[in-house]
Amino acid sequence: MSEARKAVCLLSGGLDSSTCLAYASKQGYDCYALSFDYGQRHRIELEAAAKIAASLGAKKHLIVRIDPRLFEGSALTTGPEVPKSRSGDEIGKEIPVTYVPARNTVFLAHGLAWAEVLGAGDIFLGVNAIDYSGYPDCRQEFINAFEQMANLAIKASVEGRLRIRIHTPLITMSKAEIVKLGALLGLEFRLTHSCYDPDASGRPCGRCDSCLLRRKGFREAGIQDPLEYLA
Amino acid sequence: MSEARKAVCLLSGGLDSSTCLAYASKQGYDCYALSFDYGQRHRIELEAAAKIAASLGAKKHLIVRIDPRLFEGSALTTGPEVPKSRSGDEIGKEIPVTYVPARNTVFLAHGLAWAEVLGAGDIFLGVNAIDYSGYPDCRQEFINAFEQMANLAIKASVEGRLRIRIHTPLITMSKAEIVKLGALLGLEFRLTHSCYDPDASGRPCGRCDSCLLRRKGFREAGIQDPLEYLA
Repeated sequence: MSEARKAVCLLSGGLDSSTCLAYASKQGYDCYALSFDYGQRHRIELEAAAKIAASLGAKKHLIVRIDPRLFEGSALTTGPEVPKSRSGDEIGKEIPVTYVPARNTVFLAHGLAWAEVLGAGDIFLGVNAIDYSGYPDCRQEFINAFEQMANLAIKASVEGRLRIRIHTPLITMSKAEIVKLGALLGLEFRLTHSCYDPDASGRPCGRCDSCLLRRKGFREAGIQDPLEYLA
Repeated sequence: MSEARKAVCLLSGGLDSSTCLAYASKQGYDCYALSFDYGQRHRIELEAAAKIAASLGAKKHLIVRIDPRLFEGSALTTGPEVPKSRSGDEIGKEIPVTYVPARNTVFLAHGLAWAEVLGAGDIFLGVNAIDYSGYPDCRQEFINAFEQMANLAIKASVEGRLRIRIHTPLITMSKAEIVKLGALLGLEFRLTHSCYDPDASGRPCGRCDSCLLRRKGFREAGIQDPLEYLA
């Protein structure tokens, strides 16, 4: 029996990255989940990530700290307040204040280092370019450029032992399609956390971009979201 | 009078990155020096970096911690001992055990995040592809691929406010040429630290690849290296 292939799966604890991890696991990969503590206001997502990694049978889950001074000024860290109550139609028209400088570049760079250490050629990332917030580092052309760079960067690739592939299975899906896929894969939605600005007990606000997109997705998928929103 | 342009300068505290910072400073940039604590055995280089950043008038110096679990297995962190006493001719024939997985990708990703926060379009990196240890992420083709990716990754580039340029002024220089350039720029060589495996007091071993290349460079440049080596 041949050994399962290893994959590094970036996991925020949100709906998309959790569905992505469930997908990679279903494909038969041994999954190594990687989460980041970068001083985000919604740190409860790290607890969610740990529970999801365990529930989906990840071989290992690493939470890596990133110096938050690098990300100063984003609404997700030290910047202005997370905006609320935009209509669904307003989302995605411009890059919002919740953008975090070079976040996916930094995350994928860490994922690449761990992938080489593990001997994992496959990196899964739950980015989505349809029902999303307009971040430039969620687009396919960024992912392609990162993959190309990655294969020039590491010893294992240059020596021909490892070909790095960045998998983004959700990138062209709507949020409703992601919800349906998650349901199909048996993802425990109650463990996932999407809100940018939860209260102290972790309850989602229901009004930030991320909550609005999630609720719209569940509604359109015709599936009940088990989370209880504050508003 | 127009404001000086800002540059992020990656600074290990070694000869190359220090010369690179001196060069960027001489070009008139306001320099923001960035160093990394990644569990390297030769942590004394971080003290060297702080002294050099101060002596070269950097506007700010940030030492960022990177989770060393990502880099497991390199001789510079937790892996085998740093090899000694190879002849100068053996260096650069193959990628050595001192390789650190995806190190420059992780470093540049952090540099990119800070550059966007600062509004700095220019990132300086003292890599060198001639008298070097054979690392894949010191080659021009890797640098080009990173730059291309970077301009697709960040909001400020996508919106046309910032064009990221990765400067590698030393990449085609010999170590002797770097020593000569450092001397010309008034770099205080006694502050720089190159050894991979210094003793507890910080004295360089004189026999690791990095010491051998440095000594050869000073010898060929006809300039006295102020460091006192153990052997």
